[in-house]
Amino acid sequence: MVRGRVIGRFWATKRVDTLPQGALLEVELDTGSRLIAFDPLGCAEGEQVLITQGSVAAAYFERHRAPVDALIIGSLDEPGSGA
Amino acid sequence: MVRGRVIGRFWATKRVDTLPQGALLEVELDTGSRLIAFDPLGCAEGEQVLITQGSVAAAYFERHRAPVDALIIGSLDEPGSGA
Amino acid sequence: MVRGRVIGRFWATKRVDTLPQGALLEVELDTGSRLIAFDPLGCAEGEQVLITQGSVAAAYFERHRAPVDALIIGSLDEPGSGA
Amino acid sequence: MVRGRVIGRFWATKRVDTLPQGALLEVELDTGSRLIAFDPLGCAEGEQVLITQGSVAAAYFERHRAPVDALIIGSLDEPGSGA
Amino acid sequence: MVRGRVIGRFWATKRVDTLPQGALLEVELDTGSRLIAFDPLGCAEGEQVLITQGSVAAAYFERHRAPVDALIIGSLDEPGSGA
Repeated sequence: MVRGRVIGRFWATKRVDTLPQGALLEVELDTGSRLIAFDPLGCAEGEQVLITQGSVAAAYFERHRAPVDALIIGSLDEPGSGA
Repeated sequence: MVRGRVIGRFWATKRVDTLPQGALLEVELDTGSRLIAFDPLGCAEGEQVLITQGSVAAAYFERHRAPVDALIIGSLDEPGSGA
Repeated sequence: MVRGRVIGRFWATKRVDTLPQGALLEVELDTGSRLIAFDPLGCAEGEQVLITQGSVAAAYFERHRAPVDALIIGSLDEPGSGA
Repeated sequence: MVRGRVIGRFWATKRVDTLPQGALLEVELDTGSRLIAFDPLGCAEGEQVLITQGSVAAAYFERHRAPVDALIIGSLDEPGSGA
Repeated sequence: MVRGRVIGRFWATKRVDTLPQGALLEVELDTGSRLIAFDPLGCAEGEQVLITQGSVAAAYFERHRAPVDALIIGSLDEPGSGA
C-alpha cells in the first residue's frame, strides 16, 4: 500500500455505468505524484490515508467488477517514523 | 486511477482479434508520461479524463477477456484543487 | 519481489471492514521509495524483508479478498551481493 | 496500453515449459525504457506497436495461464499527434 | 517482460508457509533497478534472464496461489540489438 494526503475531489458526470457512486479523491503521495482513489470512508481534505491499488481495490466491491484500481482502505492514526 | 488529457488517437488495422472495436486514445498524464486507453465514452481531444488500469480495465468488457489494460471511465467535471 | 528495511508502523482505527487485523509496516526500499506492507511474520524495525505486491499479496488471505496489495513474505538471512 | 518501437528479438532456449512458442521482441518506449513483449502478429524491427501488460496479456493465451506479462496487440497505422 | 542480470541470491529462513522452496535470485535490470525473482531454471550469477511479473508469475505454481510476483521464465541466448 501507499500513503498520501487528500488534496481534492473530482466529479465525473460523464462516466461508465459500472463506476460505483461515491467520492473520488485526489491524493498526493510522499513522492509528489498523485492518484485518484475511491473513498468509502468519508475522508476529508488534508487527511492522511492508506491506499491499495490494482485488482484488489476492485475486489472491495462485491456485486460486480467495478473499474476501480485505487481504494482508500484506512485513515492513518499516526504519521509513523521518519516521514 | 490517474487523470490526464486526451492528446490524440491511434488506429491499428493490424491487431489481435480479441481487441475490441472502439477508440484508442493517447492521454498525457500530469507527470508528462503518456498512455493509450480504450475510450467507451466518446471523449474529444483536450478533454480531462479519468483512467483505470490493469485487469480491472479488461473486466469492463463482459463477453471475453479483452487485452485492454487502460480504460477511460469518466470525464472530469472540474480540475480539482491545486493542479 | 522487492526488498527493503522496516522503518516504522502505522495504525488505522478508521478502516474498511475487510482490512485484516495485523501489523502495517512502512518499508523503505533500496531506491529510497517507501511502501506499506502487511506483516504476518512479526518483523521488527530495521529488519530486512522481502515483499510481494499486487493480487498475489491479497491471495495470501484465504477467507476473503483482503484489500492488501503488499505483503511481507520473508525476512532476509543475508543481504546478498553488492548491495 | 503503451506504444513503442520494435528494436530487437530474443531467443531463450532454456525456458519454462509454459512459455508459449513465438517471438519475444524487445520494444523501446517513448520514455526510453525497454520491455520484452510476446508478438502474435509477426511485427518487424522498427515497427510501432501497441502493448498491453499484466494479467490481461496472459489471458490472450486460452489454453493455459502463460507466464507472459507483455503482449503486442496491434501495430499502429499512424503515430498520432505530438509525438 | 523485463530482462536483467543475476547478481546474487537471498535466503529467508523466516518466511510465510506458502512461499515455495527454491532459489530467490536478485536481478539487476538495465535501468539499474533491482528485483528479486523466483528461479525455477537453476540460473547462475551473471546470467541474462527474462522475468515476468505480477499475478502471471504466481500462476506458474499450480497447486496453490504462491506469493511470488516475479519469476524467471527464460535465460537469454543472445543479448539482442543495441543494449
